[in-house]
Amino acid sequence: MKISQFSEFKLIKRISKQFPKKLPKGIVGIGDDCAVFPGSGNKSYLVSTDSLVEDIHFLVGKMSAAALGYKSVIVNISDIAAMGGTPKFALLSLALPKNTGLTWVKYLIKGIKEGCEEHKVILLGGDTTASKKNIFINITIIGEADKNKIKLRSMAKVDDIICLTANIGDSGVGLRLMREGKPSNLVLTHKRPKAQVKEGQWLASKKEVHAMMDVSDGVDSDIRRILEQSGVGAIINLEKLPISKEVIRLAIKKKWNPDELALTGGEDYCLLLTVAPNSFEKLNKEFQKTFKTPLYPIGHITKYNKLLLYKCMQQVVYLRARGYDHFKK
Amino acid sequence: MKISQFSEFKLIKRISKQFPKKLPKGIVGIGDDCAVFPGSGNKSYLVSTDSLVEDIHFLVGKMSAAALGYKSVIVNISDIAAMGGTPKFALLSLALPKNTGLTWVKYLIKGIKEGCEEHKVILLGGDTTASKKNIFINITIIGEADKNKIKLRSMAKVDDIICLTANIGDSGVGLRLMREGKPSNLVLTHKRPKAQVKEGQWLASKKEVHAMMDVSDGVDSDIRRILEQSGVGAIINLEKLPISKEVIRLAIKKKWNPDELALTGGEDYCLLLTVAPNSFEKLNKEFQKTFKTPLYPIGHITKYNKLLLYKCMQQVVYLRARGYDHFKK
Repeated sequence: MKISQFSEFKLIKRISKQFPKKLPKGIVGIGDDCAVFPGSGNKSYLVSTDSLVEDIHFLVGKMSAAALGYKSVIVNISDIAAMGGTPKFALLSLALPKNTGLTWVKYLIKGIKEGCEEHKVILLGGDTTASKKNIFINITIIGEADKNKIKLRSMAKVDDIICLTANIGDSGVGLRLMREGKPSNLVLTHKRPKAQVKEGQWLASKKEVHAMMDVSDGVDSDIRRILEQSGVGAIINLEKLPISKEVIRLAIKKKWNPDELALTGGEDYCLLLTVAPNSFEKLNKEFQKTFKTPLYPIGHITKYNKLLLYKCMQQVVYLRARGYDHFKK
Repeated sequence: MKISQFSEFKLIKRISKQFPKKLPKGIVGIGDDCAVFPGSGNKSYLVSTDSLVEDIHFLVGKMSAAALGYKSVIVNISDIAAMGGTPKFALLSLALPKNTGLTWVKYLIKGIKEGCEEHKVILLGGDTTASKKNIFINITIIGEADKNKIKLRSMAKVDDIICLTANIGDSGVGLRLMREGKPSNLVLTHKRPKAQVKEGQWLASKKEVHAMMDVSDGVDSDIRRILEQSGVGAIINLEKLPISKEVIRLAIKKKWNPDELALTGGEDYCLLLTVAPNSFEKLNKEFQKTFKTPLYPIGHITKYNKLLLYKCMQQVVYLRARGYDHFKK
């Protein structure tokens, strides 16, 4: 059996099954945006690692080295934001084919530096090596958070309101346009994502926020992680999805399904969270006051273990597309 | 200019030059086996990251997946040993071509698990993704050490005795024999390295031990890191190199230069350290009592900035080969 007959999610599950489930106090292992281990005093460290592989995650001709370097840092920082932490340190592994241009590497490092400086992250070290054909970039990020304020994927409760902190779909559509070689603001959204560190910290400090994660593979994939970890279900109302006018206009023009685009495009890097239903209105007002943008409620948590239902005007609907899976596409 | 016209060491130097030299107290960045950041109380965390790339570091047909998985953990743990720490946590990034066999992945994970369990390391998480052609394995390891007992490469002092904790050259010769398809104990040494964690901890607890690192690229490369970081020079006496009878016998038979093999083969994963000259004899006695094997003094530190001299019977000699460089070979 080949990997390609297997989903990425199943592979991770299979790997994690090999390792002990019961971990010492203060440690969170596989299954969340970051792992957690003890820091000093009431602090914990958060740690996450992510690879970007040439011809899978990026095409050298389609994205500048500086943009790639910057993005590779930001998407990692987004994992720290997803748990309400502050990014602190990064480690970089680079595997480069021998014919890689030195100027390309210089700009990659420039982009990485820019991403680190923007978030006051210290690059602590790494590894450089040759590769036979493709470029591999692996970044490990370490952040810090208050021990009692870390939000996990496993914390969703029945009846919680599911919300997003920003529009979804812009980056996915940006990627399509980039591949078509069309200039657009959406391409910039795709190339230059934002990590919502401040928003994550603010939300993590609120007791009424239960589960939280960042949207990297698309809401359709990512909400399933919350359902899996929390042992709950969800109903998502398609008419509530926050989709930009630009994406809707393009979708109409190109006969794309905007809901599917928004839910499965991925790389949104906004936050997906669940909130105690009675506290939502007050929380949203405070959030809006602080960040000048609202939380977008898109559905609620149900008791039906791992069952994800999409509704539109109260009718159940089925998506044709699914969230991004590296081994499938 | 292409990477191949550049050495790995120069590339790392160029990257590290981009990032601030002055780091907050308690933090050690690029330039050592591990980076260091604050833990709780009088503890520090050590962190290191390492990549293994198919067709560069390993050939799928020449090494079993289980052996590869085990080795990839152990070589990372060796970096923690090099600073006198205890390995605690690991993160694993895997990039796999779609045609990778599931059984191969299963055995890789089995090997990784074995390496982790042997050293009580918790696999905290990671990332799995597809790659276009080659397998790429990245492991980040996090360890813990007493803040005041960490040994850095920058701590060597003039007149220090340079020593090794084990034979060198076995693994390098093992690799040659493995490529030739010849069975030998040396092949096993290459495939199944040992991380000298206990030795590292013991040595780190001694004030008379100054600089320490593990031998991964070969003593010829690695001692230069100590000279670079400490701003000193070294004289190495070739007749003092600890080389196994097996390697010497093979070298004679095959007309290889045993000293060059030993100094440049790499992947020895023993420790290379410098010791205050007056304390060496006493330290070596204690070490021998504890570990049933001596320290091997191979030379001494000089004041000549970065100058590495090899001597044999007091005559200066020059090596033809150099330590391993991923971008050159």
